[in-house]
Amino acid sequence: MADKNNKIEPKVLKGFTDYLPKEAKARQILFRTIESVFERFGFTPMYTPALEYKEILLNKYGDDEKLVYSFTDHGGREVALRYDLTVPLARFVALHQNEITLPFKRYQIAPVWRAENTQRGRLREFYQCDVDIVGSETALSDAEIIACLCFVLDEIGVTNYQARINDRGIFNVVSETLKLTLEENVHLLRTIDKYYKIGVDGVMEELEKYKFPTQHLDFVKKFLAVGVNKEAVENLKQLLPQHPSIANHIEELFKLLEELGVENSKLLFDPLIARGLDYYTGMVFEISLNKETVGSIAGGGRYNSLLDQFSKNPLPAVGGSIGIDRIIEAVGIDTFFSADTTPRVLVFNLEPSFFNDYIRIITRLRKAGIDAEIYMDTAKMEKQFKFAEQKNFTHAVIYGNKEKTEGEVQIKDLVSREQRAAAIEDLVRIFKETK
Amino acid sequence: MADKNNKIEPKVLKGFTDYLPKEAKARQILFRTIESVFERFGFTPMYTPALEYKEILLNKYGDDEKLVYSFTDHGGREVALRYDLTVPLARFVALHQNEITLPFKRYQIAPVWRAENTQRGRLREFYQCDVDIVGSETALSDAEIIACLCFVLDEIGVTNYQARINDRGIFNVVSETLKLTLEENVHLLRTIDKYYKIGVDGVMEELEKYKFPTQHLDFVKKFLAVGVNKEAVENLKQLLPQHPSIANHIEELFKLLEELGVENSKLLFDPLIARGLDYYTGMVFEISLNKETVGSIAGGGRYNSLLDQFSKNPLPAVGGSIGIDRIIEAVGIDTFFSADTTPRVLVFNLEPSFFNDYIRIITRLRKAGIDAEIYMDTAKMEKQFKFAEQKNFTHAVIYGNKEKTEGEVQIKDLVSREQRAAAIEDLVRIFKETK
Repeated sequence: MADKNNKIEPKVLKGFTDYLPKEAKARQILFRTIESVFERFGFTPMYTPALEYKEILLNKYGDDEKLVYSFTDHGGREVALRYDLTVPLARFVALHQNEITLPFKRYQIAPVWRAENTQRGRLREFYQCDVDIVGSETALSDAEIIACLCFVLDEIGVTNYQARINDRGIFNVVSETLKLTLEENVHLLRTIDKYYKIGVDGVMEELEKYKFPTQHLDFVKKFLAVGVNKEAVENLKQLLPQHPSIANHIEELFKLLEELGVENSKLLFDPLIARGLDYYTGMVFEISLNKETVGSIAGGGRYNSLLDQFSKNPLPAVGGSIGIDRIIEAVGIDTFFSADTTPRVLVFNLEPSFFNDYIRIITRLRKAGIDAEIYMDTAKMEKQFKFAEQKNFTHAVIYGNKEKTEGEVQIKDLVSREQRAAAIEDLVRIFKETK
Repeated sequence: MADKNNKIEPKVLKGFTDYLPKEAKARQILFRTIESVFERFGFTPMYTPALEYKEILLNKYGDDEKLVYSFTDHGGREVALRYDLTVPLARFVALHQNEITLPFKRYQIAPVWRAENTQRGRLREFYQCDVDIVGSETALSDAEIIACLCFVLDEIGVTNYQARINDRGIFNVVSETLKLTLEENVHLLRTIDKYYKIGVDGVMEELEKYKFPTQHLDFVKKFLAVGVNKEAVENLKQLLPQHPSIANHIEELFKLLEELGVENSKLLFDPLIARGLDYYTGMVFEISLNKETVGSIAGGGRYNSLLDQFSKNPLPAVGGSIGIDRIIEAVGIDTFFSADTTPRVLVFNLEPSFFNDYIRIITRLRKAGIDAEIYMDTAKMEKQFKFAEQKNFTHAVIYGNKEKTEGEVQIKDLVSREQRAAAIEDLVRIFKETK
């Protein structure tokens, strides 16, 4: 609304946010690190548009469908802003099957939009960072997704994480063993998914409400007691002796993850991880910090049926996603700056008659690939120092009357506060060595 | 629409596009180059959301307003997808005046959405790359915008460009001299803006239609004949002797651009460049290739009034934008790959019993920061070579029975086709040296 002076109030939509330069730079450094690890694992970037036909996004998100932003465009088409990067990937693969090489290993870092209830502290526009492998059913492809996300965390310097890994096949086997109906199966999965919130008693109470018979409750209780890790695999074999393949797959996966360089201590087999109800058909995983305030920071799994909806030649797929905002929340944005020691030079603007000298200095530095700027107007030293500090410069170059007489410049390191004299001709070499 | 097998047709909206890995990677390399030059000039990244209140975007784009994508959100708010990055910047500066340091030098590389007529070959979602300086009226800030964009082109290896520079103040002076009404002024500016398409005769014809008196036509004819560059500045001084300040500003700007490292031969003063009718209040420029098929590849100017609508403390601003798609069209995507010689290694999967050796090799390379992948299944050599070629790997590591016996691996350079033997322990060093 325009106020009485006809000004429009500058404001941002609820659930949306601006990032000031420091936050934006920290996020950029994080994105670059993630990209470099993704590429190290052989994933390539790809791009899909923000808007898709609404029918492509629908029927994929269950109850969350009402959170999809959709509208009618100028040409009368029903369109929607992407809700995640996985459904657009499925559409992309179906559309470009003849142009891509299988297995297709791609990553995508891009915003998605969800009309979330902001009271839960969630943003309506946020970035997803996804890696996926389409066209391979190997245990190696499962392992590469998990290993790659663990490498990202290692590279950022996050050490206190743990990956809980499971196979959704376990629930099918349980369901088969108990001869559950489709509806009972949904109830069971949803209830077990809440185990870490509501505990054994909570699970039992809820299943009783759904009228599960006593022998089923007894079995589920044994299942919940399977535990995690090595002994859990053994317990699982005993609980489900007719289905050794699942325990074998888990064991193979753990062995591969170790070979791929993931520390054993960071891996947990957790037969109770279900990751919601949709897409997933096989391996599922969740990575969280050993810090309970921040929830899971990465997760994913195998989804062999998602592509079926778009293509007569469906393909198996496995993928994972890493949560940027939670990582930043957990480690703090300063972490990303301490890693970046590239010099950023501010040439002080002290004497109007030396203006051209200043411009020549920054131009010489820039041509050598060094970040350099001049303070735009002539101003007092203190003001220029304050500006340099606010804008995170690493070095000041000072060239006033005294320096001109002595035929040199002063370089001030704004971090260590040390100062040294240097010849103008040596500036490029000096800052190159600082890099 | 779902077909008879209940498949949803995978398709992309008209005017929108996917980028396959090769195109996406080329664009990413280009974005990184642009970012690095922008940062070298002291610009920092910032971020604004894709969706804004509709009222913030309206009344800024004149006739183009109908091209803004807008809709009512779940909370009944009128919202719109951003149409450019400049109006959101103005909103951002007004909202965060107390959190930013002036002059505020920011860049933003992000998609914008316009419901364009696709028959003109334009996309409805495309990236803009903008640099702007808010809070400085110095000639240096004008010059830095132009110099920075020229450096980007130099860095990409585009050499055949020319920057045409003007000052919109010229048109105000012409308008004052002829004592034009506001409406006549709009007609004059719009007509002169078409000069390079319709020529002198076209301009005269159109102005006659608007009933411009003969003495005005004579003056406009003289103005159109002012010419470009050095002599043009002199001609301008003679045509408008009461207004030396404009010619002086142009001369100062050219001198600064030279000091900032822009080749003189790439700069042209062109008093007929108007850049449409909106925002701009002072310096305007357009950079184009000496190749007529591609239009202007960069442009911008000073817009001292845009922030007035959002703030009681308006600030002067100047900015420029570089057209990614046109640059890629002009230089071809392969340009971006030839610059990237980083090794990307495919370890061939030849002997099932050596699988763990292969995994250990890629893990060792990855831990050393080298891009490495294994062919996922065991397959014939030819098939793996074909895959390596399709996916742009630079090197293959071959380790079969013969190599195991000899205690070494074969490294094949996939570009030069040369092959050499090496010890597994030396692989990291060898690929690090290749970098």
